[in-house]
Amino acid sequence: MKTKYLLPLAAVATATLLPGLGLAQEAEASTSPALETSYILTTLLFLIGGFLVFWMAAGFAMLEAGLVRSKNVTMQLTKNISLFSIAAVMYWLVGFNLMYPGDGWMIAGWLGPFFAVTSLEPVGLAAAEATLDYASVGSDFFFQLMFCATTASIVSGTLAERIKLWPFLVFVVVLTGFIYPIEASWQWGGGWLSEAGFSDFAGSTLVHAAGGFAALAGALILGPRIGKYGKDGKVNPMPGSNLALATLGTFILWLGWFGFNGGSQLAMGTVGDVTDVSRIFANTNMAAAAGAIAALILTQVMYGKVDLTMVLNGALAGLVSITAGPLDPSLFGALWIGAIGGVIVVFAVPMLDKMKIDDVVGAIPVHLIAGFWGTLAVPFYTEGTSFGTQIMGFAAIGAFVFVTSLIVWVILKAVMGLRPSEEDEVNGLDVAELGMEAYPDFTKG
Amino acid sequence: MKTKYLLPLAAVATATLLPGLGLAQEAEASTSPALETSYILTTLLFLIGGFLVFWMAAGFAMLEAGLVRSKNVTMQLTKNISLFSIAAVMYWLVGFNLMYPGDGWMIAGWLGPFFAVTSLEPVGLAAAEATLDYASVGSDFFFQLMFCATTASIVSGTLAERIKLWPFLVFVVVLTGFIYPIEASWQWGGGWLSEAGFSDFAGSTLVHAAGGFAALAGALILGPRIGKYGKDGKVNPMPGSNLALATLGTFILWLGWFGFNGGSQLAMGTVGDVTDVSRIFANTNMAAAAGAIAALILTQVMYGKVDLTMVLNGALAGLVSITAGPLDPSLFGALWIGAIGGVIVVFAVPMLDKMKIDDVVGAIPVHLIAGFWGTLAVPFYTEGTSFGTQIMGFAAIGAFVFVTSLIVWVILKAVMGLRPSEEDEVNGLDVAELGMEAYPDFTKG
Amino acid sequence: MKTKYLLPLAAVATATLLPGLGLAQEAEASTSPALETSYILTTLLFLIGGFLVFWMAAGFAMLEAGLVRSKNVTMQLTKNISLFSIAAVMYWLVGFNLMYPGDGWMIAGWLGPFFAVTSLEPVGLAAAEATLDYASVGSDFFFQLMFCATTASIVSGTLAERIKLWPFLVFVVVLTGFIYPIEASWQWGGGWLSEAGFSDFAGSTLVHAAGGFAALAGALILGPRIGKYGKDGKVNPMPGSNLALATLGTFILWLGWFGFNGGSQLAMGTVGDVTDVSRIFANTNMAAAAGAIAALILTQVMYGKVDLTMVLNGALAGLVSITAGPLDPSLFGALWIGAIGGVIVVFAVPMLDKMKIDDVVGAIPVHLIAGFWGTLAVPFYTEGTSFGTQIMGFAAIGAFVFVTSLIVWVILKAVMGLRPSEEDEVNGLDVAELGMEAYPDFTKG
Repeated sequence: MKTKYLLPLAAVATATLLPGLGLAQEAEASTSPALETSYILTTLLFLIGGFLVFWMAAGFAMLEAGLVRSKNVTMQLTKNISLFSIAAVMYWLVGFNLMYPGDGWMIAGWLGPFFAVTSLEPVGLAAAEATLDYASVGSDFFFQLMFCATTASIVSGTLAERIKLWPFLVFVVVLTGFIYPIEASWQWGGGWLSEAGFSDFAGSTLVHAAGGFAALAGALILGPRIGKYGKDGKVNPMPGSNLALATLGTFILWLGWFGFNGGSQLAMGTVGDVTDVSRIFANTNMAAAAGAIAALILTQVMYGKVDLTMVLNGALAGLVSITAGPLDPSLFGALWIGAIGGVIVVFAVPMLDKMKIDDVVGAIPVHLIAGFWGTLAVPFYTEGTSFGTQIMGFAAIGAFVFVTSLIVWVILKAVMGLRPSEEDEVNGLDVAELGMEAYPDFTKG
Repeated sequence: MKTKYLLPLAAVATATLLPGLGLAQEAEASTSPALETSYILTTLLFLIGGFLVFWMAAGFAMLEAGLVRSKNVTMQLTKNISLFSIAAVMYWLVGFNLMYPGDGWMIAGWLGPFFAVTSLEPVGLAAAEATLDYASVGSDFFFQLMFCATTASIVSGTLAERIKLWPFLVFVVVLTGFIYPIEASWQWGGGWLSEAGFSDFAGSTLVHAAGGFAALAGALILGPRIGKYGKDGKVNPMPGSNLALATLGTFILWLGWFGFNGGSQLAMGTVGDVTDVSRIFANTNMAAAAGAIAALILTQVMYGKVDLTMVLNGALAGLVSITAGPLDPSLFGALWIGAIGGVIVVFAVPMLDKMKIDDVVGAIPVHLIAGFWGTLAVPFYTEGTSFGTQIMGFAAIGAFVFVTSLIVWVILKAVMGLRPSEEDEVNGLDVAELGMEAYPDFTKG
Repeated sequence: MKTKYLLPLAAVATATLLPGLGLAQEAEASTSPALETSYILTTLLFLIGGFLVFWMAAGFAMLEAGLVRSKNVTMQLTKNISLFSIAAVMYWLVGFNLMYPGDGWMIAGWLGPFFAVTSLEPVGLAAAEATLDYASVGSDFFFQLMFCATTASIVSGTLAERIKLWPFLVFVVVLTGFIYPIEASWQWGGGWLSEAGFSDFAGSTLVHAAGGFAALAGALILGPRIGKYGKDGKVNPMPGSNLALATLGTFILWLGWFGFNGGSQLAMGTVGDVTDVSRIFANTNMAAAAGAIAALILTQVMYGKVDLTMVLNGALAGLVSITAGPLDPSLFGALWIGAIGGVIVVFAVPMLDKMKIDDVVGAIPVHLIAGFWGTLAVPFYTEGTSFGTQIMGFAAIGAFVFVTSLIVWVILKAVMGLRPSEEDEVNGLDVAELGMEAYPDFTKG
C-alpha cells in the first residue's frame, strides 16, 4: 500500500506540464497533507511531552513531602499544588508573551504588552491558517507552561519547613510571571543569549539552575531551620518522614523528564526528528541511571553505607546534567555526564551544610550545581558551542535570577515577613499555619 | 521532503484524463493513505486518552484512601480496585452495547440485545474493512469503558467508612452495566437528549453528576457515619489519614483529565482536530488551576487558614466544571468557569454537613454540584445551546440516575443490608470486614 | 481534504508514461512519505510503550515497599531504583547486542562481540538511511531495555527483607547483562526457540517466568526470613506495612502493562497494526480485571474475607497470563485466561508457604506460575502454536534461567555472603545496613 506514494513528485511535474486542470478551485490544495501530518505529530509531541512534564509537578510534591518531617507535610503539599496553579495563571496572563515577544498573535493588548494574555487558535482551525511547519499554539503554550511551573517547584523544596505560605506564593507570582519568562526569552524567545551562541537544549540553566538560584537567594534571606546547625558547627540531621514518597517522587520526575527533554526537540514530523527524540529518550534514561549508580557507589565508599536520598538526588542530578544537551552525546556520553552529576550531589550536599545554607531537599546541588555542570558539558558533544559562551550564559542567567529573586525576597521579608514564629516552626507549620496534620492517625515518635 | 506532496490533486486530475492505467487491479487503492493516517491518529488518541483515564482509577483510589481514617484504608482500596474490575467486565458484557445501540457490530446475540457482549475487530484488520473516518472499535471500547468506571469511582468516596463491601459491589454491577450506559446513550449514543440539543462534551453531567447522584442516593439511604453529627448539631471532623496520598490522587486525576477531556474530541486526524485537542488540554489545565486558587484564597479569607483538602477538591471541581465544554471557552473562560467550581466546593461542603448528608471525600460537591455548574455554563461559549436545554438535560439525567439508584440501594438494604454492625464500624472496616490493616506497623494515635 | 490522495497511483503511472521530468535529481523521492509516516508512528509506539514500561519500575518499587515491613522499606526502595539503573547500563554495555546478535549496527567492536556497546543512529538521520519499515534504533533500544529491567524487578520482591544489598545488585548485573539477553535472544533475537515455533508475544515466559525462576533460585539458596515458618509447621504472617502503596504499585503496573503488551506489537504504522494494538489494550485490561475479580470472589468463598493483597496479585497474575498472547484472544478469551491467573495466585501463595519457600510479595505465583499458564494458553487462540512447543519453550527458558541463576547465587553466597547477621535481619535492614528509616517519625507498633 505504501508504494502508492513512491513517486508523487511526478504529480507536481505533471501539473506543471498540464495546467488548467481545475486546481485553482481547490482551496485545500494550498496545504500539503504531509505537512499537515507533520503538524499533527509535532502537536502530539507537545501534548504528550506536556502531560509528562505536568506530571513532574506531582513528582516534586511527592519528593518534597517525603523529605520534610511529618509536621510540615501538609504545608509542603499545599505549596506544591498552589505554586503549579499560580504558574498556570501567571504564565497565561503575562509570562508566555514576555517569553516569546516576537509572536504577534499573543498580544491581546488589553493591558499593554506586559499584560497581554495568551490567546489560542480558534476552534476548528483550518489547515490553511495553521503554522504547518510547527505545531498548534495551544499545545506549545501547554508545553511551555509546564517548564515555567517546574522552575517554581524547585524553589519550594529548598525553603521547606520554615517559610510561611503566602510570601512564598507571592514570590511564585513574580518568578513565574516575570523572572522566568524574561530570562528564558533571552535564549528560547530568540534573545541575545541565543544570538551569542549559548546552547541549552531543554533547560539545565534556563529552568533548573534558574530555579536553583531563586532558591539560593531565598535560603540566604530566610536562614536555616531552627536547630539545623548547632553552635559547635555540628549539622543536625532532620530526616525525611516518608522515603517511599520521596522515591515515588523521583520515579515520577524521571518519567516526566522524557517529556521534558524529548518534547524539547520541538518537532516530530520527520524521520530525522522522531529519531532524534528517541535518541533523547535513551540518553535521558542513561544519564539518570548513571547519576543514581554514581551516588550509590560513592556513598558506599565514602560512608560505608548507601544513602537512599543521595541515590535519588543522584538520579535527579543525572537528569539535570543531560538536560542542556540530551541530543548530541552518545549513550556513553550521557553515562559519564550523568555520573558526574551524581558525584556532584554527593559532594555538594555536605558542602552547602558547611556553608550553613539549609537546603531541605538538596535542590541547589541537584538543580543549580548539576545544572551548571550540564551546561558546561555541552561543548564536548555539540558543535558550534564553546565553554566560554556556556559559562557566560550561565553566569548571566544566574546573576539575573539571583539578584532579582534576592530583591523580591528582601521586599517580601520587609512587607509580609517570611518566617513563622519560632514556636510555630518548632511545632510544625501544619498545625500552626494550616490547622491540619498530614498523618493525624499516627503517633509521632 | 514535504514539498513532494504539494499538488497531489494533479494526480487525481491526471488519472481522470488518462484512464486505463491499470488502477483497477490495485485493491489497496480503494482506501486513502491520508484517511488511513487519520484513522491511526484518532485510534492513538483513544489509546492515550484511555490509559490516562484508566490512571484516574488510581487517582480516585489514592484520593479516597488518603481522605478516610486509617482504620478504613484497606477497605477503600479494595473497593476501588474491585469497582474498576467490575466495570471492565460489565461494560463489555452489556454496557457498551446498551450505550451505542445503533452499532450492529456490537450485537453478538447470544443472550439477546441486553446481554450482547462487545466484539472487537479481527486481528490484522484490512484498511478496506476499517471505519476509516473514525477509529478502531477496540480503542473506542477501551476509551469509553474508562468513563463508565469513573462514574462508579465517584460513588465509593461518598459512601466510605460505613458501607459493607459486597452490597457496594453489587450496586457497581448495576451502575456500570445498566444505569450509566442507559443515561449516557441518551446523549452519546445518539439518543433523545442529543437530539434535543443538550451539550455535554466530556461528561460533566453524564459521568460526574451521574456518579454524584448515585452517591447522593446511597448517602441518603445509608445515613451518616456514627458520631459524625452530634445531637447538638455539631459536625465532628473526621480528618483524612494521609494527605500526601490525597494530594497524589488529585494530581493523578488532574493528569488523567487531559485524556478524559482531550480524548473526547474523538478525532485527531486533521489539523483542526489536533488543534482543538490542544485547546482542550490548555483549558482543562486552566480550569483546574483556577479552581485550586479560588479555594486557596477563599478558605484563607473565610477561615483564616488555607484548607488543603478544599484546595484539592477545588482543583477537581474546576476540572468537573470545564468538562461539559472544554473546547469552546477561551483560556479566560476556562479560568472563571473553573474558579466558580472551586468556590462552589468551599460553600457546598459545609452545606451538605448542615443537611447531615455525610459525604466522606466531598464527591457530591465536586462531581454533582460543580457538574451542574459546568453543564449550565456551556451556553456562555458554545453556540446552539441554551440554558433551558442544559438544565432540562441535567434534570433528566439526574432524576433517572437518582431514582434508579435509590431503588437499587433500597433493595440492597432490604436484601443484603448495607451497613456493618455498629461495633465493626467503630473498630474500622479493615479489621472487622477484611481482617487486614493498611498500616499495621504504625501505632494509631 | 483527505480525498486529495484518492488515486495517487496515477502519479506513478504518469511518471512511467512521461519520463525525463527531472525526478532523478530528487534524492528525497527515493523514500515514500507513507513509509516515513509509518516509521514515525512505530517509533512513537516504542517511545510511549517504553515510558509506560519504565513506569512499571516505579510500580514494582511501590508494590514491594508496601508489602515489606516498615523496617525494610528503605532497603526495598534502594534495591528497586538501583536495579533499574544497573539494568539500564548493562543492557547498553552488553545486553542489547547479545539479545539481537544479527544486527550489524550494534557491534561497536571495542571489546569483542560480548561487550559491544549499543550505538544509536546519528543525529538528524536522513530518511533514506532509516529502517523505514520498522522504527528508530533509539526507540527500540529504549523499549527493549525496559523489559530487561522488569525481569530484575521481579527478583527483588521475592528476596526482600533478608538479602544484603550488594550481592543482590551483583546478581542484577549478571541477570540483566547476560542471563536475560541470552534467553530472550532465543525467541526475540530470532534464535532457535522462535524457529521451533514457540510463541510468547510480550514475555509471559521470557520476562515474567524468567524473573520468577531467577527469584526461585535465590529463594532456595537464601532460605526463608527468620521466624516465617515455625517449627510446628505454622506459617507466621508478616503483613505488609503500607497497603496504599501496594495498591498504588499495582495500578502503576496495570497502566504500564498497556505499554508492555501494546508496544510489543512492534508496529503502529498501518490500519491493521493500530487496530491490533487497540485489541491488545482491551484484552490486557480485561485480563487484569478478571484476575482481580477471580481473587476477590475466591478469597471471600475460601476464607470468608476478601484479601486485598490477593486481589492485587490476582490483577497482576491476570496481566502476566495474557502477556504471552494478548492479541489473538477475544475479550471473553482474555477474561477466562486472566481469571485463571487470579485463581492460580490464590492457590499458589499458600502452596509455596507449605513448601517453605518464602516469597515476600508473591512474585513466584504471579510471574512464574501465571507466566506458565499464560504461555500454555496461547494455542487456544493462536494458530500455528502447540501445547507441546509451548511447554518445551517454557521448560528450556526455565531450566536455563534457573540453573544459571542458581550457580550465580551459590557463587555469591560463597564469595560475598547473601544474608545479613541474624540480629540485623531482626532489627530490619534499614537501620542495620543503611542507617536510614523510611518512616522515622512514626512510632512502630
